[in-house]
Amino acid sequence: MQNPERNPWKTLSSEVKYQNPWISVREDQVIRPDGQPGIYGVVDCRVATGVLAFSEDDELYLVGQYRYALGCYSWEIIEGGAETGEDPLEACKRELQEEAGLVAERWEPLGHEIHLSNCHSSERGFLFVAHGLSHVGATPEGTEELQVKKVPWREAVSMVAQGNITDAFSIMAILLYDRQRG
Amino acid sequence: MQNPERNPWKTLSSEVKYQNPWISVREDQVIRPDGQPGIYGVVDCRVATGVLAFSEDDELYLVGQYRYALGCYSWEIIEGGAETGEDPLEACKRELQEEAGLVAERWEPLGHEIHLSNCHSSERGFLFVAHGLSHVGATPEGTEELQVKKVPWREAVSMVAQGNITDAFSIMAILLYDRQRG
Repeated sequence: MQNPERNPWKTLSSEVKYQNPWISVREDQVIRPDGQPGIYGVVDCRVATGVLAFSEDDELYLVGQYRYALGCYSWEIIEGGAETGEDPLEACKRELQEEAGLVAERWEPLGHEIHLSNCHSSERGFLFVAHGLSHVGATPEGTEELQVKKVPWREAVSMVAQGNITDAFSIMAILLYDRQRG
Repeated sequence: MQNPERNPWKTLSSEVKYQNPWISVREDQVIRPDGQPGIYGVVDCRVATGVLAFSEDDELYLVGQYRYALGCYSWEIIEGGAETGEDPLEACKRELQEEAGLVAERWEPLGHEIHLSNCHSSERGFLFVAHGLSHVGATPEGTEELQVKKVPWREAVSMVAQGNITDAFSIMAILLYDRQRG
């Protein structure tokens, strides 16, 4: 009997159809699970990284920015992307400093590898928790106009429950850590 | 003083660079928040829908399928996409029948609008909980080769905690509902 978890797709060829410095879109010619020919379009991008950064008073750092792709303002945990070959933790350290001007003494991974939108994207994400913060000065990129604020942990959880945080990666980070805290 | 939550981007023009029946990728010529010219690539797709479907014994229906974009097998809640203008709840009802061969008597929304990958995608998602299921027969699409199973609710939560569910939409649904159940 065939392993039901095997790959039921056959890739015949693969062509990059669009590329910019942040995403790349390829279209594969495939044989589908039902044996018929077809195509599959896949969006490739950097590995997503997210940090729950806590002040000494158990307040969570949130970053606010206008999200161009959705046309709305969004409060989120500190997020970024790892360059090819870059360790996700190193990317988190970079983003924490760039966006919030902070360095952390203690880091721990939160949860496991996450697939953000697995139907048409290969985007993978990793979350971390950072404690023992000190200020060093922010250096935002030209593509970013950010606000940074701290909120008490219970308020962050309640922002998720009330739909005031809409970013999937932030929602998962806050709910996973809330469960872990018990 | 300027509203810090205003749109700091200016869109000069917009061009579709790639399109298939599932996704569309456009590149906008923009003026960035720092006043410099640049581009922004946005992936558009259908509205994502997800269903936590419960048996009478409080077991959760999970669907297993090979995810081509990531090259791995994935156990997930029942997910699909709403066509343009289609109500997300109607899309959920359709997917529940297509993938698991089930119809539900009672539906409730779970949480709020979610943005799956807001840096380069406009994908929005809506979650629902379904109870009072009865079997009518599944009609999977040719692009799908699915396994369906039921797991006790605590096992579903523990699959998230242990990294055995990696799909973001499923992780959020399970953690949001676990919080709601208390």
